[in-house]
Amino acid sequence: GVLPLCRQPPAWGRAARRSSGPSLAPCRTFSNNKILVELNESSGVATMKFKSPPVNSLSLDFLTEFCISLEKLENDRACRGVVITSNVPKIFSSGLDITEMYGKSTEHYAEFWRAVQEMWLRVYGSNMVTIAAINGSSPAGGCLVALSCDYRIMVENPKFSIGLNEAQLGIVAPFWFKDTFVNIVGHRVAERSLQLGSLHPAPEAHKIGLVDELVPEEKLQERAAAVMAQWLALPDHARQLTKSMMRRAVLDRLVAHREEDIQNFTTFISKESIQKSLRMYMEMLKKKKQ
Amino acid sequence: GVLPLCRQPPAWGRAARRSSGPSLAPCRTFSNNKILVELNESSGVATMKFKSPPVNSLSLDFLTEFCISLEKLENDRACRGVVITSNVPKIFSSGLDITEMYGKSTEHYAEFWRAVQEMWLRVYGSNMVTIAAINGSSPAGGCLVALSCDYRIMVENPKFSIGLNEAQLGIVAPFWFKDTFVNIVGHRVAERSLQLGSLHPAPEAHKIGLVDELVPEEKLQERAAAVMAQWLALPDHARQLTKSMMRRAVLDRLVAHREEDIQNFTTFISKESIQKSLRMYMEMLKKKKQ
Amino acid sequence: GVLPLCRQPPAWGRAARRSSGPSLAPCRTFSNNKILVELNESSGVATMKFKSPPVNSLSLDFLTEFCISLEKLENDRACRGVVITSNVPKIFSSGLDITEMYGKSTEHYAEFWRAVQEMWLRVYGSNMVTIAAINGSSPAGGCLVALSCDYRIMVENPKFSIGLNEAQLGIVAPFWFKDTFVNIVGHRVAERSLQLGSLHPAPEAHKIGLVDELVPEEKLQERAAAVMAQWLALPDHARQLTKSMMRRAVLDRLVAHREEDIQNFTTFISKESIQKSLRMYMEMLKKKKQ
Repeated sequence: GVLPLCRQPPAWGRAARRSSGPSLAPCRTFSNNKILVELNESSGVATMKFKSPPVNSLSLDFLTEFCISLEKLENDRACRGVVITSNVPKIFSSGLDITEMYGKSTEHYAEFWRAVQEMWLRVYGSNMVTIAAINGSSPAGGCLVALSCDYRIMVENPKFSIGLNEAQLGIVAPFWFKDTFVNIVGHRVAERSLQLGSLHPAPEAHKIGLVDELVPEEKLQERAAAVMAQWLALPDHARQLTKSMMRRAVLDRLVAHREEDIQNFTTFISKESIQKSLRMYMEMLKKKKQ
Repeated sequence: GVLPLCRQPPAWGRAARRSSGPSLAPCRTFSNNKILVELNESSGVATMKFKSPPVNSLSLDFLTEFCISLEKLENDRACRGVVITSNVPKIFSSGLDITEMYGKSTEHYAEFWRAVQEMWLRVYGSNMVTIAAINGSSPAGGCLVALSCDYRIMVENPKFSIGLNEAQLGIVAPFWFKDTFVNIVGHRVAERSLQLGSLHPAPEAHKIGLVDELVPEEKLQERAAAVMAQWLALPDHARQLTKSMMRRAVLDRLVAHREEDIQNFTTFISKESIQKSLRMYMEMLKKKKQ
Repeated sequence: GVLPLCRQPPAWGRAARRSSGPSLAPCRTFSNNKILVELNESSGVATMKFKSPPVNSLSLDFLTEFCISLEKLENDRACRGVVITSNVPKIFSSGLDITEMYGKSTEHYAEFWRAVQEMWLRVYGSNMVTIAAINGSSPAGGCLVALSCDYRIMVENPKFSIGLNEAQLGIVAPFWFKDTFVNIVGHRVAERSLQLGSLHPAPEAHKIGLVDELVPEEKLQERAAAVMAQWLALPDHARQLTKSMMRRAVLDRLVAHREEDIQNFTTFISKESIQKSLRMYMEMLKKKKQ
């Protein structure tokens, strides 16, 4: 029969090329305000930990730091894969920060939306292997981050849920959220889940294919490392070209309609009825806290 | 975590807006020859019952009444959802009425086909929540009606079957039947089922995702009401925009090729070989009855 | 209810039409160097047996013979379906012959790639019912042959595996391999399997829908005949139009980009790094044999 050429060819992979560069410490850490990044240079694997309590919401600042960190890793020959996880208990990311979408100027909405787009374009189109280690709930934009990775491992706790629940808030997931979702769970599951704004408890998320596997919380990082090793066993170049072939159509669609999509968002979010809904929602959240 | 803004916001939904209008009776009924419609104005849910024995076949008259009833409900602010079911035992709908496709003029075929298209465009593109409560067999065009709804509940009786079995009759399901089917069961299941002209018994239909759930016959309407309540808990506007985002591509495709599709149908159905097949089929049905 | 018009209408099917022709022997055999073809004229079913030891690799000669045999059957009114299987123990087909892709001229690569395209266009677009009876491992191009059929039955031996494992060899499956694969297993399973270059053992291949069913080796041909009879029970014309409707988009895509795809392949395969990888791979295979 035919066997793999070799499982980790020294001629392939950016980590390999690094060996001819200057000698480096085995682990490098760089942290900014909202994200902690640890890069293990011997394995070529970085870990990005969201550390923006209370709920890792995707504010403009968070998104900017996220994109900068991703770009840094993308351009670092020592890095071939990244595990994205949370440093905040019980929450992976709560999604887009509502305060960025309420009572601001049109210019602000546009800037914010461009940052959301940029984040997705970078994660979904990354040349690195991307694994979401989902150690808490992950609604809306938080779910999108996970959906944009190559593989999703979630803690098996049924109290943690994940989904594109935008419809529950009276808003609509944009087409590229939808495209990403359909690529993973198929048209029918996506149609039902998006219309109902479903937040799927971990076991259900696994059943519909939204996440690839469930593990006990204490095994999460170990399992992420094992899966990462499996993906990194492939030659980078072939894996990257294959990934691009699978995702290009959906990525290109946003790139081609980016300004129009920003325009749609700013018009929609500026509507009085939507602003009112968001205010009611924030007031409800405040009351819950007290 | 993030919680839904509110489950049934008074500011959303056409039923809510109705409250500022004139006081109305809690239940309105309008019936024509082939379909009975009951609208419960307190829940905002209509029930459409096909009552065209022996098999609720989709004749030109039936389709015209169906479209008129749908349009009435669509424009009625008191109505947010519709349950489609049969008043005839053991059959949901037998599909397109063959007598409309045999021995008639080209003009008649064109008029009939336009009515079939119109029905699908209205059901698949409806702003209302549409639930098929499938209480009997549902081949071909009957299956299409069910496929065009948002959700399908079928009586668990394995003697009831459902499918796009056109190929068994020597004819071919048009591309928009196929698109609707692929959106629900995926490409592979659709390809096999359409080529074999399969009629799936209820348990199998459930297994391949053609229907969403099975219930005992006596629980059907109760379960349909419960599912409807779940879908109506979402704000209408967000749900409608989401639905449109999921279905627009397939709807637009027929709209763009509507005349061409009519032309194809009339040419195909007028062929001597097809007319002969249909005659043989009708004769076989007649003999079966005797 | 509605019943099928008739299960095997005498007016349909090319085999039926043959009955008015000259009397023929019930079984015809034609063999060339690499493929054995047996046509049973009473059933209308041909069997193609790959007999190119040691691994039925798809050389230029093999592909040429394969296409000629397919064309012969396609144009033979006595033939309505073909079962494709292997005459070599433990292997269905090992895929594209690497020696055709190593150390040859650009012209040779172009000629070879055109033959690969031609094979796929003929199998995926065949008017006949095509069933793959997979009695051994089937990596890469061998998997493509199976994926291009209407139905896949595999021997349940877990030592036999199947998949598009190109990425393991440092190369990339072309878009039409990918399109064919996505049409069968869906986008998510395809994305993961292609990026990992997975070879799925038979039970896993069945689980992900890559093959339709598993049988014990001794039952394979019997089961293939039974499935074939089921597919041939449909009127040829309706089945063929339905198949074409399902596959046309993907077939047309290659036809529209055929020269560009050849150009891409020759450029890619001529790269020094790729040639080096292939040489290493062939050397590894040689060592394994010794």
